[in-house]
Amino acid sequence: MGVMQVSSFAAGQWIAPSGTTSKLYSAANGQMIGEAGCDSLDFQQMLDFARDKGGPALRKMTFHDRARMLKALALYLNERRDGLYALSHMTGATLADSRIDIDGGIGTLLVYASKGRREMPADQVYVDGETEMLSREGTFIGRHVCTPLTGAAVHINAFNFPVWGMLEKLAPTLLAGVPAIVKPATATCWLTEACFKLMIESGVLPEGSIQLISGRTGDLLDRLDSRDVVSFTGSAATALSLRSKNNILANSVRFTAEQDSLNASVLGTDIDPGTPDFDIFIKEAATEITTKAGQKCTAIRRIIAPASRIDAVVEALTKRLEAVTIGDPALKESRMGALASAAQKRDTLENAARIGVECERVFGDEEAPELTGVGVEYGYYLKPMLFVCNDPDAAKAVHEVEAFGPVSTVMGYRDAEHAIALANRGGGSLVASVVTRDPQTAREFVLGAGASHGRIYFNNGDSAKEATGHGSPLPHMVHGGPGRAGGGEELGGVRGVMHYMQRTAIQASPDLMTGITGNWFRGSKEITAPAHPFTRSFGELQIGETIHTPSREVTLEDIEHFASFTGDTFYAHMDEAAAKANPFFPGRVAHGYLLLSFAAGLFVEPNPGPVLANTGLNSLSFQKPVSPGDAISVRLTVKRKTPRNEEYGEVAWDVVLTNQDGEQVAEYELLTMVSL
Amino acid sequence: MGVMQVSSFAAGQWIAPSGTTSKLYSAANGQMIGEAGCDSLDFQQMLDFARDKGGPALRKMTFHDRARMLKALALYLNERRDGLYALSHMTGATLADSRIDIDGGIGTLLVYASKGRREMPADQVYVDGETEMLSREGTFIGRHVCTPLTGAAVHINAFNFPVWGMLEKLAPTLLAGVPAIVKPATATCWLTEACFKLMIESGVLPEGSIQLISGRTGDLLDRLDSRDVVSFTGSAATALSLRSKNNILANSVRFTAEQDSLNASVLGTDIDPGTPDFDIFIKEAATEITTKAGQKCTAIRRIIAPASRIDAVVEALTKRLEAVTIGDPALKESRMGALASAAQKRDTLENAARIGVECERVFGDEEAPELTGVGVEYGYYLKPMLFVCNDPDAAKAVHEVEAFGPVSTVMGYRDAEHAIALANRGGGSLVASVVTRDPQTAREFVLGAGASHGRIYFNNGDSAKEATGHGSPLPHMVHGGPGRAGGGEELGGVRGVMHYMQRTAIQASPDLMTGITGNWFRGSKEITAPAHPFTRSFGELQIGETIHTPSREVTLEDIEHFASFTGDTFYAHMDEAAAKANPFFPGRVAHGYLLLSFAAGLFVEPNPGPVLANTGLNSLSFQKPVSPGDAISVRLTVKRKTPRNEEYGEVAWDVVLTNQDGEQVAEYELLTMVSL
Repeated sequence: MGVMQVSSFAAGQWIAPSGTTSKLYSAANGQMIGEAGCDSLDFQQMLDFARDKGGPALRKMTFHDRARMLKALALYLNERRDGLYALSHMTGATLADSRIDIDGGIGTLLVYASKGRREMPADQVYVDGETEMLSREGTFIGRHVCTPLTGAAVHINAFNFPVWGMLEKLAPTLLAGVPAIVKPATATCWLTEACFKLMIESGVLPEGSIQLISGRTGDLLDRLDSRDVVSFTGSAATALSLRSKNNILANSVRFTAEQDSLNASVLGTDIDPGTPDFDIFIKEAATEITTKAGQKCTAIRRIIAPASRIDAVVEALTKRLEAVTIGDPALKESRMGALASAAQKRDTLENAARIGVECERVFGDEEAPELTGVGVEYGYYLKPMLFVCNDPDAAKAVHEVEAFGPVSTVMGYRDAEHAIALANRGGGSLVASVVTRDPQTAREFVLGAGASHGRIYFNNGDSAKEATGHGSPLPHMVHGGPGRAGGGEELGGVRGVMHYMQRTAIQASPDLMTGITGNWFRGSKEITAPAHPFTRSFGELQIGETIHTPSREVTLEDIEHFASFTGDTFYAHMDEAAAKANPFFPGRVAHGYLLLSFAAGLFVEPNPGPVLANTGLNSLSFQKPVSPGDAISVRLTVKRKTPRNEEYGEVAWDVVLTNQDGEQVAEYELLTMVSL
Repeated sequence: MGVMQVSSFAAGQWIAPSGTTSKLYSAANGQMIGEAGCDSLDFQQMLDFARDKGGPALRKMTFHDRARMLKALALYLNERRDGLYALSHMTGATLADSRIDIDGGIGTLLVYASKGRREMPADQVYVDGETEMLSREGTFIGRHVCTPLTGAAVHINAFNFPVWGMLEKLAPTLLAGVPAIVKPATATCWLTEACFKLMIESGVLPEGSIQLISGRTGDLLDRLDSRDVVSFTGSAATALSLRSKNNILANSVRFTAEQDSLNASVLGTDIDPGTPDFDIFIKEAATEITTKAGQKCTAIRRIIAPASRIDAVVEALTKRLEAVTIGDPALKESRMGALASAAQKRDTLENAARIGVECERVFGDEEAPELTGVGVEYGYYLKPMLFVCNDPDAAKAVHEVEAFGPVSTVMGYRDAEHAIALANRGGGSLVASVVTRDPQTAREFVLGAGASHGRIYFNNGDSAKEATGHGSPLPHMVHGGPGRAGGGEELGGVRGVMHYMQRTAIQASPDLMTGITGNWFRGSKEITAPAHPFTRSFGELQIGETIHTPSREVTLEDIEHFASFTGDTFYAHMDEAAAKANPFFPGRVAHGYLLLSFAAGLFVEPNPGPVLANTGLNSLSFQKPVSPGDAISVRLTVKRKTPRNEEYGEVAWDVVLTNQDGEQVAEYELLTMVSL
C-alpha cells in the first residue's frame, strides 16, 4: 500500500492534501501510512454550497423521503464493510472494535431510517406535542412545529470512532433536512474519508448535502451565523475554545458538545460475590476497560462498590484482565488492540500517573506499561491498568482526570447515599451504570444521580442476555451529559433530529392550522366528497373530507341486550338506583363500547372498497353519559394521511359522537389502512 | 410616600440597601422615589441556601404538590393586585399595561398549576416520550425520565415586566422542583420587590425556594457550576457578557437567553384595504406600538406589507396613532404611559435616529418627540414614531436596531418570497405575525420563515375575536427565538419545565423500570391481589396488580349477530371471499369492537364498587385477526395511578387480548376513575 493522500470534499469536488500536511501513522505498527491537510479549502465556499445547494435540495424532500435515503445509504455501506475493516485495523481497532464503529454507524442510519418513517410525517413540517386550546370557542388554537435550520451543520468528530462518529451525527442531521460539513479528527481521518467516499459514490445524497474536511477547520467556525449548528465530540479544552468564539456566542449559534466524562459503574449492596449478578458487573467493567483499548467516551472510569466488596471486585477483575490477549488488531486472537496514536498513548500514561498519585495501582505493569514484542514493537499499545482509591471523598484526580485508555479505578462506598455522591463527583457524565436487583435501589439512584448523568444503565441477571452494554450509546436513547460531559444531547430518536430544527410556536385559526400542518383540526372547514369516504382511495381522500351520519336511538333494550350478549353487566348499565348513586351517571347509561359499535354501524360502508381495515384507535374519551332514549350520530373526518408502503397508507379519522341535543358524548381518532 | 428602601431577600432574611445604592425614579413624573443596592449580600451563602435548603425541600414534593403550591400562590397574589397596580404606575405603566404585567404573571402561575396537575405525574420523576424496545424478548427496555437540577436557577429579568418577568420564570422553575434566585432590573425593582414580599408573606413556598437580589449580582455568576441554570431576559450585549464567562462555558452551565428581537408583522397579498382583515392588521400594529409605550420584546418593529399597500397602511396606522392619548399612566384617560427610565428614553431616541438615517419618518414630531405639559413635564414620555423604509433590501438598521419604545417601520414587499426574506432579515426573532385568509400562504410562510422565528402568529377575521395578540407570550406556547433573539426557549407548557430538569436515558429490565417510573411495564412482575381489582379502592390498588380472565370463544353466530345488531356489516365480517381477498384477513373475522366488548364482559366485576366509570382508552391496536372459532382471554394490569380530586383518581390499565394459541390479538390502555 502506498502513502494515502487523504482528501477533502468541498463544493462537490475532491481536493487532495496541500500546504502544511499532517502525517498519519498506523496504530498497529507505528508506520507512516498517509498524510492529510487542507490549506487550500475555501471555507466560505463550502458554507455557501451547503446553505445554497444542499439545504434547499434536502428541504424539498419529506421526512419519509429522507428516511428512505438514509436506508439506501446504509444498505450501500453495509455491502462494502470489508474494505473499511482493513483500514480500521490501522487505527488500532480489533475486528470487534471495528464492528462497533462501522456496523454501529450503519445500524444508526437504519434506526433513523425506520424512525423517520414510523415517527415522523410524510411532510416537511414536524408537529411537536398536542394542540393547545387558546380560545373558548375554538377559533384560535396553538401548536408547535419544527422546520429544518437553513444553514449548515458542522460536525467535529473525535478520533476514536471514525465511522460511527460521522454517521451518528449525519443520520439525524440529514433526516432533519440539514446539510453537513464533516470534520473528523486527523489521527484516524483515512477511515472516515473511505466511508465518506462510499457515500458520495452511492449517489444517494443530493449534491451539497455532505462535505468533508480532512485537516484543520481554519476560519470555518468564525463564519457561522444563527442559521448554523455545531455538533462537537472531543476534549473539554477544545470544546471550550470553540464555543467561546465571539460569533458563536453573539449569534446564538447552536453548539452541542459531548466531551470528557468520568463514567461510573456501581455495584448494588444487594449483589453478593459469586452470584451471576456479580459476574455481570465484573464482565461489563472488564469489557469497558479493554474495548477500543479503553478509548470510549462512555467507558467505565470509576468502579464504585460497597467497601466490603472491594477485594472481591479487584480479584475478579484482575482475573479477567489477565486473560485478555493484547496484540496486532488485525489478528483474530487479539482481544485488545492499540491506542490510536502516539499522542493518545502519551496522554493516557500522563493521566494515569496523575491518578496514581492518589490511588494504588493493583493491576498493570508499572515498570513496563507498554506492550513490546515482534510485530507490535512500534505500535501504540498499552496494558490495562487498575487502581484502587482508598479515600474517594478526599481524592480529586480520580473524579476529574479522564485517562482515555485502558485505565479504571475501584473505590468503596458506605451506603446508597454515599454511592450516589461519589457517582455525582464526576461533575456531570455521559453514563452511569448500576447492577442491582432491587427496584427501590434503582429508583433511589435515579432520583439522586439523574441530574448528573445523561444516561443511567441498569443491569442484572434478568436483562443481561439482552442488555446492550454500559458503553454503547444507542440511536434510540439520548447520548450526552451535563457539566463536564459538555451539556449536550445527541441521538435519542426524534429528539436528536430536533437539534437540527427550529421549534416554532404556531397560533392560528383551525383553517390556517390545517393548511400549515396538513392535519385537520376541529373547527376547520369540512369538505363534502361526491361519495362515501370508504369508497375513495388513499390518494382521492382529502384532508377535511367529512360525513355526518343519520342518528340512531339507543334504547334500554339495546343496553340490556348488549349486556347479556357481551357479559358486561356492570351496574351502571343494569341497576338504576346504583347507577344514580355513582357520581358520573344520571341513572342507567349505555356501555361505551355499545356507542363505539353503533357508531361504526352508522359510518361503515359495508361493500369491498379501498378501506381495508380498522387497525386501532387513539385517545378515546367518553365525555357525557348516554341514557336510554338518547340518539347518537357521528361526524367522521379525514384528519391525517401517512403512506405506509406501495399498496396502502394509514388514514386517521377524527370521530365525534353527538347526542340529540348536539352535545358531544365521545371522541376518538380512528385508524384505518386504505389502498393507494 | 417616603423614599422606598428596596430590599433583597437572602438566606431567609430581608436585607436593606447598603453600600453603593442606585436611585429609583418614577417614570410618570421623574421624581426620586427610592433606592436599591445590595453590596452586603453574600452570594455564596445565597447559592448554598438555595442548593442545600430550597432544593431538597422542593424535590421532596411531587409535581402535583408543587402545582398546588403555585395555585395557592396565584390566588394569594390575585387578592392583592390593587396594591401592585399603584406601584406599577410609577414604572410608566397604564392600568391596561399593569394588567398585562401583574394579571399576566398570575395567570401564568395558574396555567402551570393546571398543567402540572393534568400533564405531569403525582410523582417526582417525569417520564418523557414512549418506551423504546431495546430487546427482542423484552427483558431490556429504554425510557427517558426528567429529574430536577440540584443547583439554583438564577433569573435575570428585564425592566419592562417587573411582575410577569419574575412569575413566568418562577412558575416552571418551581414546578420542576428547583429553587430560584431572582434578580430584577434595578430600574423597576420596587414593583418586583413588592410582589416578592407578598409571596414570602403567603407562607406557601418552602424556605429557600426563592431569594431576591435588588441591586447588582456581583460575583454570583462566577460561582455557578454544572448544577445551576441561568435564565436571562435583557439586552444582547448583557447576555453576551454573561454567557461568555469562563465558568459558565467550562461547566456547561445551562444558559437561556431572551434578548433583542426585530419582530415583523406581514400583511398577506390576499388582504385588501377597507376589509375587516386589513383593520385587524392595522389594529394589532398600533397596539404593539403603544402598549407599554412599545417596551415589549415582542412588539412589532417591522410592518411588512405589499408594496402597493404601503400608503394605505401608513394612512390607517397614522389615524389610529393620532387617536392615542398619552399621559400620566395613573389617569384613566391615558392610553399610553411613559417609558420606564430616562436611560430608556435616551436609548429609544438614539436608536430611532439610527433608523431615521435610512428611513423616512411619516408619523411623530421630529421637533418635539417628547411629551410636555403640566403633570408629565419631568416624566419619561415619548410620542409614537412611524417610519417608512423605501429600500428594505439595502437597509440595515431597520433590521438590526431595536428602538425599544413606541417606534415601528413600514416596508414594502414584492411577493411572498420577498416578504419571507425580509422577515428573516431580523436574524432570528421572537415572533412574526401574518394576517392572511389563505392556508397555502400560511404554510409557505412557516416553511420559509419558521427557522428564523420562535413564534408565528396568524390572524384574520375568523380568529380575531379570540386571538390572543401578536405581542402576548402565552404560558402554553414557547417564548424565545433563534439568533439575535438569544437562542433560548421559555414557557411552552411542560417544555418550559424541562429547562430546569435533566433528561436522562434509562435502560433497565421491566421490573426495575417499573420501580423507577412508577408505571408498570409489560414483562414486569404481576401482582395477584386477594380480590378482583374492581373491588379495590384507588389506595388499595397496587401498580402491577393483575387478573387473567377465562377465555371465550368467538363464534360465527356472534359475528353475524353483532353485525346485525350494530349495523356494522363491513364485508370483512360478512363475506368470506371478499374478506380473503383483503391483504389483512384470512377470511371472515370478528369486529374489533366485538373483541373490545367481549373483553369488557370478561374482566368487568358487575357489582357496585370503587371502580366508578370507564372514561376512555388510549393506543388501541388490533394486531392479529380473530377468526370464527378462536377464543380470546384478557390480561388486565394496573399500569398507572393519578389522583384527580378528593374523591377519586384515574387508574390506567394495561390490557392485552390473547387468542387460544397465546398470540396477542389486541392491546390498549384502559382508563377508569376509581374511588379513593
